[in-house]
Amino acid sequence: MAAKRILVIHGCNLNLLGSREPELYGSATLDEIDRQIAALAEELGVEVSFVQSNHEGEIIEAIQAARGAADGMMINPAGWTTTSVGILDAVKAVGLPTIEVHLSNIHAREQFRRHSVLAPATIGQICGFGAASYLLGLRALARHLGVTGSP
Amino acid sequence: MAAKRILVIHGCNLNLLGSREPELYGSATLDEIDRQIAALAEELGVEVSFVQSNHEGEIIEAIQAARGAADGMMINPAGWTTTSVGILDAVKAVGLPTIEVHLSNIHAREQFRRHSVLAPATIGQICGFGAASYLLGLRALARHLGVTGSP
Amino acid sequence: MAAKRILVIHGCNLNLLGSREPELYGSATLDEIDRQIAALAEELGVEVSFVQSNHEGEIIEAIQAARGAADGMMINPAGWTTTSVGILDAVKAVGLPTIEVHLSNIHAREQFRRHSVLAPATIGQICGFGAASYLLGLRALARHLGVTGSP
Amino acid sequence: MAAKRILVIHGCNLNLLGSREPELYGSATLDEIDRQIAALAEELGVEVSFVQSNHEGEIIEAIQAARGAADGMMINPAGWTTTSVGILDAVKAVGLPTIEVHLSNIHAREQFRRHSVLAPATIGQICGFGAASYLLGLRALARHLGVTGSP
Amino acid sequence: MAAKRILVIHGCNLNLLGSREPELYGSATLDEIDRQIAALAEELGVEVSFVQSNHEGEIIEAIQAARGAADGMMINPAGWTTTSVGILDAVKAVGLPTIEVHLSNIHAREQFRRHSVLAPATIGQICGFGAASYLLGLRALARHLGVTGSP
Amino acid sequence: MAAKRILVIHGCNLNLLGSREPELYGSATLDEIDRQIAALAEELGVEVSFVQSNHEGEIIEAIQAARGAADGMMINPAGWTTTSVGILDAVKAVGLPTIEVHLSNIHAREQFRRHSVLAPATIGQICGFGAASYLLGLRALARHLGVTGSP
Amino acid sequence: MAAKRILVIHGCNLNLLGSREPELYGSATLDEIDRQIAALAEELGVEVSFVQSNHEGEIIEAIQAARGAADGMMINPAGWTTTSVGILDAVKAVGLPTIEVHLSNIHAREQFRRHSVLAPATIGQICGFGAASYLLGLRALARHLGVTGSP
Amino acid sequence: MAAKRILVIHGCNLNLLGSREPELYGSATLDEIDRQIAALAEELGVEVSFVQSNHEGEIIEAIQAARGAADGMMINPAGWTTTSVGILDAVKAVGLPTIEVHLSNIHAREQFRRHSVLAPATIGQICGFGAASYLLGLRALARHLGVTGSP
Amino acid sequence: MAAKRILVIHGCNLNLLGSREPELYGSATLDEIDRQIAALAEELGVEVSFVQSNHEGEIIEAIQAARGAADGMMINPAGWTTTSVGILDAVKAVGLPTIEVHLSNIHAREQFRRHSVLAPATIGQICGFGAASYLLGLRALARHLGVTGSP
Amino acid sequence: MAAKRILVIHGCNLNLLGSREPELYGSATLDEIDRQIAALAEELGVEVSFVQSNHEGEIIEAIQAARGAADGMMINPAGWTTTSVGILDAVKAVGLPTIEVHLSNIHAREQFRRHSVLAPATIGQICGFGAASYLLGLRALARHLGVTGSP
Amino acid sequence: MAAKRILVIHGCNLNLLGSREPELYGSATLDEIDRQIAALAEELGVEVSFVQSNHEGEIIEAIQAARGAADGMMINPAGWTTTSVGILDAVKAVGLPTIEVHLSNIHAREQFRRHSVLAPATIGQICGFGAASYLLGLRALARHLGVTGSP
Amino acid sequence: MAAKRILVIHGCNLNLLGSREPELYGSATLDEIDRQIAALAEELGVEVSFVQSNHEGEIIEAIQAARGAADGMMINPAGWTTTSVGILDAVKAVGLPTIEVHLSNIHAREQFRRHSVLAPATIGQICGFGAASYLLGLRALARHLGVTGSP
Repeated sequence: MAAKRILVIHGCNLNLLGSREPELYGSATLDEIDRQIAALAEELGVEVSFVQSNHEGEIIEAIQAARGAADGMMINPAGWTTTSVGILDAVKAVGLPTIEVHLSNIHAREQFRRHSVLAPATIGQICGFGAASYLLGLRALARHLGVTGSP
Repeated sequence: MAAKRILVIHGCNLNLLGSREPELYGSATLDEIDRQIAALAEELGVEVSFVQSNHEGEIIEAIQAARGAADGMMINPAGWTTTSVGILDAVKAVGLPTIEVHLSNIHAREQFRRHSVLAPATIGQICGFGAASYLLGLRALARHLGVTGSP
Repeated sequence: MAAKRILVIHGCNLNLLGSREPELYGSATLDEIDRQIAALAEELGVEVSFVQSNHEGEIIEAIQAARGAADGMMINPAGWTTTSVGILDAVKAVGLPTIEVHLSNIHAREQFRRHSVLAPATIGQICGFGAASYLLGLRALARHLGVTGSP
Repeated sequence: MAAKRILVIHGCNLNLLGSREPELYGSATLDEIDRQIAALAEELGVEVSFVQSNHEGEIIEAIQAARGAADGMMINPAGWTTTSVGILDAVKAVGLPTIEVHLSNIHAREQFRRHSVLAPATIGQICGFGAASYLLGLRALARHLGVTGSP
Repeated sequence: MAAKRILVIHGCNLNLLGSREPELYGSATLDEIDRQIAALAEELGVEVSFVQSNHEGEIIEAIQAARGAADGMMINPAGWTTTSVGILDAVKAVGLPTIEVHLSNIHAREQFRRHSVLAPATIGQICGFGAASYLLGLRALARHLGVTGSP
Repeated sequence: MAAKRILVIHGCNLNLLGSREPELYGSATLDEIDRQIAALAEELGVEVSFVQSNHEGEIIEAIQAARGAADGMMINPAGWTTTSVGILDAVKAVGLPTIEVHLSNIHAREQFRRHSVLAPATIGQICGFGAASYLLGLRALARHLGVTGSP
Repeated sequence: MAAKRILVIHGCNLNLLGSREPELYGSATLDEIDRQIAALAEELGVEVSFVQSNHEGEIIEAIQAARGAADGMMINPAGWTTTSVGILDAVKAVGLPTIEVHLSNIHAREQFRRHSVLAPATIGQICGFGAASYLLGLRALARHLGVTGSP
Repeated sequence: MAAKRILVIHGCNLNLLGSREPELYGSATLDEIDRQIAALAEELGVEVSFVQSNHEGEIIEAIQAARGAADGMMINPAGWTTTSVGILDAVKAVGLPTIEVHLSNIHAREQFRRHSVLAPATIGQICGFGAASYLLGLRALARHLGVTGSP
Repeated sequence: MAAKRILVIHGCNLNLLGSREPELYGSATLDEIDRQIAALAEELGVEVSFVQSNHEGEIIEAIQAARGAADGMMINPAGWTTTSVGILDAVKAVGLPTIEVHLSNIHAREQFRRHSVLAPATIGQICGFGAASYLLGLRALARHLGVTGSP
Repeated sequence: MAAKRILVIHGCNLNLLGSREPELYGSATLDEIDRQIAALAEELGVEVSFVQSNHEGEIIEAIQAARGAADGMMINPAGWTTTSVGILDAVKAVGLPTIEVHLSNIHAREQFRRHSVLAPATIGQICGFGAASYLLGLRALARHLGVTGSP
Repeated sequence: MAAKRILVIHGCNLNLLGSREPELYGSATLDEIDRQIAALAEELGVEVSFVQSNHEGEIIEAIQAARGAADGMMINPAGWTTTSVGILDAVKAVGLPTIEVHLSNIHAREQFRRHSVLAPATIGQICGFGAASYLLGLRALARHLGVTGSP
Repeated sequence: MAAKRILVIHGCNLNLLGSREPELYGSATLDEIDRQIAALAEELGVEVSFVQSNHEGEIIEAIQAARGAADGMMINPAGWTTTSVGILDAVKAVGLPTIEVHLSNIHAREQFRRHSVLAPATIGQICGFGAASYLLGLRALARHLGVTGSP
């Protein structure tokens, strides 16, 4: 059986990780995080590809392109979490199992950050663990796709 | 160095798991979930103990008793998620690193289930993955406690 | 055919009935009410058992225990009406036909008393008739269980 | 002593009962329901008369006319439940003991259906039992009027 | 110059005045109030005609019919105050100067009575003076129509 | 195959069209609009009948009567748009495909006009085009009923 | 019997009347309005005195001083209408019958002007008639004090 | 006279039509819809051009470019309906007559989809008719531009 | 005359005082606080007894048991302040004069802590003075019970 | 060591105490209350001075003047409790320890009285004990200033 | 041409500048700020006069007196920003071009400080720059009055 | 010392300035405004560069690129003011002193325009002065950067 393919999507400003408010978002750069994800993917036997953009339209199109090219998605919608119906609709349109992750614990921050318009279209949400949120998300998705029995 | 001790707390009605609305909460019983958690704990080299109660007061006292007896907590507050200031205050009082987990994706359910009064006192939240939410939470907590480099 | 078994659940402070704000809740004690219910049950040919508690946890566990031991439930959630997700979840978990009763007309009282979190999990609600709310509820439940053609 | 006279008031669209969304409102027609009510009235020794209208004004005037002609009222305000101050004011003006009934459990439906402007002027509310809501209401009212000791 | 013609409109339940909650609405009957209005009209040199209905539709049509037949209107929308867009639209459609009156001080009653959907289409509002609200309204309208220099 | 029958329903105050706030609602009278609708109906090969009323009860009964007598309905609920649960329930009760039209763009007017309680029971909504809203609605309904391939 | 004494209180900025937004508040100066009030008072046989201030404290103290010195008050709270609990408390403290007047129809203006904190402590409210609001208010108060049979 | 030019604007994710949640949005692809629009445009004698983008910025710029290049616009703002002030401002800036269309009946969906920030800048809105919403919109716009007497 | 008996009730988590967030709640343990209360009670000539529980049900039952056994109550509802209708109803049921105290100034903390459901059933509230809140409350209650002329 | 100086500030309408709604505010005059406060101050060994004003500006200036002249303040903001940002800012500006007192239990009164804008700038709040609220407040402040070990 | 006259108005507590929460409001005293404003006024060729008061009434009267005496106003409403309809009405009454300034960035502070009732009556708002907010405001007003081409 | 570098950022639709709703936004084109800014920058001795985009992503990236390349930013977020968490996060990520400007007085416009999500991350806000808002903002920023002593 072919390895499951997972698309990892990083929303706006995540390209600044490492230097951006490190007390909140951690000191690892996005490259370092992607390498951690890739290492765990190899360990779990899944394929991962990555996309980051500061343009909502590129995120929407990356999601659209995932149809047929990926078996699942892990998304950190970042600044679009609370407003982007476009990303919500794209996720619903492609119908792939999707997991939402956040570096910070959005439910412990400003009131306006606590609501995710994307959440109703996802399997689940992981937030507050910094870079580890992605690793946990990858495990969760791999399990959901039947790759591993236990996350 | 002594193994890290983690207290796993199951809120009200979780003793019914397996037979309770399985399409929402899965078909594993609480015992089976606890065994999965214990197995992963052994693999990770941490000690776990469990408590389940349908009494808020017992949960509060279990949290209080964790001071000195545990190094971290993983809590599924279940029906108390949206209202229990008592559990929130207990968690703040003992000051242990705490992770909040939910079997279902609370952010995709009825509006009143989407707000957690406990969240501001926790490191992070994992929801929507059924029994796997606990396993992911254990990995997250083990990593937070320095047991493992990667979750 | 065996007689249908009905569990009657009285929430917190209902043990004080008779002396508690009688202009609001009536002058019958809980024992007198239970006797009236039992008398009607006999007349209708159903079995009734009773539980009262000031502990939410005991109510939750009484509901859990009703699975297999009762064919229907009649609940006066009293002070937990507007907040207890735990009782709501227990009722949904056991899946028994359930009727909600209140002594006073909660929709004519303070604003905060008018919303029942339990209501969406019940067949219907009867409120405002004092002790008679229970008797009407018993008739309603007996009919729902097919015991009587007309309440 | 003369038999107590009870006016039963059916609000708008209730003339369609039986064919109207039967999964929600049941398959009995309004005539059948009225016959059930009349049969129970005879059994209880009260007189009942009926009015149904799709015109709020006719309902208001039926309530006004009940002063002196009836000893109590049972109203299903149907589509006017959430808005009609006119019906509320009529009930308060005639000052007769009044019971509110609903076929469906309004507290388990759309949010806008859960609030009754009429409720503060009534003795109590019965909802969710289909046609039986009326029968229970009749028992409740008969008891309130001193006709029967127990509903 | 022809005498100014004023249409006085009484909303639902006002036909019960005198016997309806007299501590709130006073002990004068609607006929007595109309006679007081007519007497003052004669004194002021204006013509008055009256309409009362418990049917919103009849009120709407009375307002529509006022175009060409009246020079101004005085309306007590009673139970329709807070909801009737139909009456609001009728008043806007005929474009006659209109005054809103209430027997009770609606701004000192239940919250839901304090908002008038009609108000933005009227010259002004007089409330709280019982039957005298109408007499003051008649003076105000007569003055607005240029009949009298001072109300 | 028999021609499809469409009932066109005009709510309160629409009988005043042409003279009523023409800058908002246009200068065509209701008769002229009905003639335009009839002409288009003939062109499309559907039968139309019309009802206008300022009485909510008559509208409810016209809708009820449409069951069996019409294949679809086009409704301008006018002043009842934001409040009439009675009209909503009638539409749901008869189960005919229904289209909601408004002369003005209700979403660009006062806040309270922007919400339609009827909308969830309709196929769709057309607003803002004056008399043309009806013509577009007729085309939409004809197409929905399979009369024409394209509106 | 001594003539009834009425204190007329003008709130902040009313000293500018005549020149202040005349399309909204009219072209009469405060002196002219006071003269109209005085003339009507003479006609009605009541004594009037006047106070205007742009200082809330002076208004509060004028109200306090009215105890024993006046039999009733007519207040235009102007800019303090929506916020001054101090004026509300003063009116309640002196316990004199009080009428609230406004030049403009506050219920047809910006949302924040439509709520009066003073209203629950007054007999009634008159608004929208410019200077005539005061004259109508004087009549209403004279009648309330038993000076005249009809306003 | 030159043919009127109409710009048809499709918002984000509409490029997926046909395969995207077909039970909600229909089975026609965007190309098929555009061909239907073009066919009707030819019939009506207007020129149409099309733009679709998943980038809000491209939509804004397409609207800006329409000034001088088009006589009217038909927009389906899709995922930007409820949030994009940028598209609202662009439409207001170019000042062209604009019609808003939606495939689904947004007023019958999730609460957050029911409000359009764009609506106050448009002539009217058509929603709920699938691909036909566009065809009806084209007719409405052609009529507004004086191309056809009747839509 | 027998000494007045006062029941002092400590809500959930107050058994942790001294070590629990001392910058917020102070460094005195609950035992030390109780000793201070007892000392002042002796000075004032009143009898005090104490109860602390982390179980809402035990608090409710302690309040119930106070009827006949105490002359007044001082309650720190702690985590139940904002939600427990059960404690509110118990206090209303026993009808003893009751004072609410809080260690911290709840009106200066998170928004959700500022509302007390218990407050309407109490004489007054004292908050923000740490352990001294209890001592002040004891003085207030002693005075209310007529023990001392001045607190 | 010099005696601690405490400024006692009485807000608007408190000069009427004794005659103002005595069932709510008690029958003691402000002078009597001030004498009670002074007597207790002498007993506690602190100096007290008093200010009362019906002018917010005078209160603000009294607070400003307290810097250097007082060691603490006790304020009953009365009618300004819910609105005066000016008093809040003055208290924050002078930085003196401040206690808020109310005669009545504001949390048991009308909704609008329950929120204090001043509260976040104070040590704590005492309300509901009539004149004794001041005496308790004085004890609390004396203790806060280190004058007494126990209030 | 005569120099333009500008009235600078400082609201309550601004007389404390320099010592009042300097981390928020800066260390310059009001005198120093006024001198900076005067120096810039001289440079720009405009006349400035100043008023500060802790009495809302004095501010209202200063604004009233500006009619005829000033060509524009710059106001820091301070503690009255969010509540004073009196100041709003005064500004509208005199009709002078007015600029609102704040030392702190009110939109980054507590929620209740972010709304200015005055704003709709002003040309614009400058906030967050400490004393420089005034200097920028003076430049803006001078330019608005045509004194300078560029601020 | 090197001249301070300031990045001026214009949000969506600002490229249309001059022709876009000139009564609201003025008649100067963006080029003209930029030239005015550049001229003042030269006068003040600071360097300015400009970016305008209708793509949120380009704005985010321009802000990201400013780190190291600019010493401060002046942003007119235009249509993204009320929704863009992405721009907010970018500003917080780069940590440069930032000033928010608006051409129109957003606090005097539609309710939805009055809230800026960006505001909490900025030094201050200037709005309502048309093109001059930018010039004032430049002065404010230059002063904040220490370039000039007085703006």
